[in-house]
Amino acid sequence: MGPEFMTYCVGLQLNHGIVFMSDTRTNAGVDNISVFKKMFTWEKPGERVLTLMTAGNLATTQSVVSLLDERSKVPEERNPSILEVPSMFQVATLVGRTLREAIMSATETGQTAEANFSASIIIGGQIRGGAPRLFLVYPEGNFVEASQDTPFFQSGETKYGRPILVRAYDPDMSFSEAIKLLMVSFDSTIKANLSVGLPLDVQIYEKDSLKRGMEKRIEAEDPYFQLVSKGWGEALKSAFSSIPDPEL
Amino acid sequence: MGPEFMTYCVGLQLNHGIVFMSDTRTNAGVDNISVFKKMFTWEKPGERVLTLMTAGNLATTQSVVSLLDERSKVPEERNPSILEVPSMFQVATLVGRTLREAIMSATETGQTAEANFSASIIIGGQIRGGAPRLFLVYPEGNFVEASQDTPFFQSGETKYGRPILVRAYDPDMSFSEAIKLLMVSFDSTIKANLSVGLPLDVQIYEKDSLKRGMEKRIEAEDPYFQLVSKGWGEALKSAFSSIPDPEL
Repeated sequence: MGPEFMTYCVGLQLNHGIVFMSDTRTNAGVDNISVFKKMFTWEKPGERVLTLMTAGNLATTQSVVSLLDERSKVPEERNPSILEVPSMFQVATLVGRTLREAIMSATETGQTAEANFSASIIIGGQIRGGAPRLFLVYPEGNFVEASQDTPFFQSGETKYGRPILVRAYDPDMSFSEAIKLLMVSFDSTIKANLSVGLPLDVQIYEKDSLKRGMEKRIEAEDPYFQLVSKGWGEALKSAFSSIPDPEL
Repeated sequence: MGPEFMTYCVGLQLNHGIVFMSDTRTNAGVDNISVFKKMFTWEKPGERVLTLMTAGNLATTQSVVSLLDERSKVPEERNPSILEVPSMFQVATLVGRTLREAIMSATETGQTAEANFSASIIIGGQIRGGAPRLFLVYPEGNFVEASQDTPFFQSGETKYGRPILVRAYDPDMSFSEAIKLLMVSFDSTIKANLSVGLPLDVQIYEKDSLKRGMEKRIEAEDPYFQLVSKGWGEALKSAFSSIPDPEL
């Protein structure tokens, strides 16, 4: 089936915009690990910015990205371009349809269960005239949108990094705080699951800017990541000490 | 197949002894939830104390406990008694064999995959002449023992509650601190997975006491659990604030 992403990626909707973070590790067994980008951006400055993150089978997700990309160069009626469809809702619909198509086409040989080629996608961004929107697209091609009640989406190895997101997320947080939050969430995940690893990709989309925001690749030796990783262990221990012990 | 435990349980080996905590919720769908005990103790005061926690299919785990219990009353050569075998290693072997037997016997009808009847067990305690020992028994009947490197076992819905265990566990901690740690870990799990829920059962085994230690059922309205649950959210937020934001 080809390598799978043992991914962790998160899209965080804020009042100021959207922050995306993904790891870059993929493996086909722990002795066969490579770095692959899982974050992709399409942009028409002043008109739209779309950022997509993938989790799941690498062949499937690469195929989705290639199909979206090729069709943005030669759009046709049956396959409209991600750079042309008029709304974020239609972007999500298009991504869902393309994902479904890629999974079906991989499964066509009938040799293997669909689940093995499965993948999911987080896509967010803004098109002029609309608000920034963030979607989680399922392998079946359907999707859900982030809302006030569910203001972020995780994909892949989601559980270890979830408690801190649930507790510390605030829609008013700055991009800087949001990146710190994501780093803590990724650090907890990386500490627990060997197959999620640095480097990480991070990207910011600033509301109504309609242009690609700051992007950065965070390498293992990144001093701020190391500060968070080390500092968070200490901070958790003092948080733990700050709660009184029970009387037995 | 009958209800499954949507369990979370943890056994924590300390220098002072062992602490056990388990939830008590079981369901066969979110509209069919009951409370079942998942923690069981066999004791010969002054000679041995054994505490067992179950995760997985309820019919399977109840069958294991019943078999162990019946055979402790009428032991035979083929089925020795959990109250008679001479070492903790043999206790784990016996529990593993009984678990395997229960799963095989449920699968015998051949109608359903073995996985549906699966279960795992954490068992710990002490037998006079030996040290306190803690084991995780797999559905296949084999088992691993806790050690300095892996001083605790989780079973069931393990991921949400793992980061705090990894960060704050210390083999020297008191029973009181250990219970606080487990409550934080359970609170993170309960907040994330509806199907894990209060009440919780907690039990302490004090090294070399060779008698059952403090036991308690923690109900939803338990004031200390509420203090931990509320306090931990606040403590996490201040821990998070204590780390400097990155410069963008």
